[in-house]
Amino acid sequence: ELIDSISRKLQVLREARETLLEDIQANNILGEEVEAIVKEVCKPNEFDKFKMFIGDLDKVVNLLLSLSGRLARVENALNNLDESTSPEERRTLVEKQKLLTQQHEDAKELKENLDRRERIVFDILANYLSEENLADYEHFVKMKSALIIEQRELEDKIKLGEEQLKCLTDSLQ
Amino acid sequence: ELIDSISRKLQVLREARETLLEDIQANNILGEEVEAIVKEVCKPNEFDKFKMFIGDLDKVVNLLLSLSGRLARVENALNNLDESTSPEERRTLVEKQKLLTQQHEDAKELKENLDRRERIVFDILANYLSEENLADYEHFVKMKSALIIEQRELEDKIKLGEEQLKCLTDSLQ
Repeated sequence: ELIDSISRKLQVLREARETLLEDIQANNILGEEVEAIVKEVCKPNEFDKFKMFIGDLDKVVNLLLSLSGRLARVENALNNLDESTSPEERRTLVEKQKLLTQQHEDAKELKENLDRRERIVFDILANYLSEENLADYEHFVKMKSALIIEQRELEDKIKLGEEQLKCLTDSLQ
Repeated sequence: ELIDSISRKLQVLREARETLLEDIQANNILGEEVEAIVKEVCKPNEFDKFKMFIGDLDKVVNLLLSLSGRLARVENALNNLDESTSPEERRTLVEKQKLLTQQHEDAKELKENLDRRERIVFDILANYLSEENLADYEHFVKMKSALIIEQRELEDKIKLGEEQLKCLTDSLQ
């Protein structure tokens, strides 16, 4: 029945999470290897730029995802308003939407500047690293954002499944 | 009476906002002058770094302020819970607090890296600018964050006053 089907889906999602966490760990190890090489061959101020860019990367990506999620939820709530909604409530939602849209725009611009910094760091590293190490750097950076996005999507799906399951079992009692 | 007193306070706050907007405009003009000089005397990649830093500055400061505000409101709500609060509601608030605390930490780290980028840009400009122009740059950057913070505080106070006034007039009708 439905409960079984959702439970099975949750099981698959949780296994996917395990695999994802291993991928994240593997990518972090690659990142540490790249960092050790960069530290050895680059000037201190260049290493600094590399470190700052890597440090900002997951923060900005996380921020962007969190703002997209909140904005989507507010817009979803706005689309589902009916006549029973008070004008007060509607106004609060519209104000929230305005604020979140602005913050989302800001976060997108931070991300654009970050992409430019990625290219600047790449150009620096290209002066020092072998082709193979440079490819490792590129792979690490690409995977870092991709894995964060995948992790976020997976966590959302698991949370949704858990809520559905809770709803169903509650309604059966 | 109370309504008069709040109205007068609001009037003062709105005048302060006018003055503040003039200060912001004046600082923006200073910023454009600094930018024009930097563009003329620095290498394109150095000008790029300057522009990116300036562009990220207000975004990160705004982000940090918005997260501090939201975190404070959630913590305030948590402190004001009483026995009538459902465990569900409490759990939602605690989860929100956890999430916001993490995002706030991230934003603080973004700001720290930004402060380091400010010093990097300063060191670049110090190679090119006269002492006076360099002082203008420093003043512009310091004022830029300070004015954003002041603007946010002022807007919050005005909003609070308007809500108080609305509450009072509603209760008198």
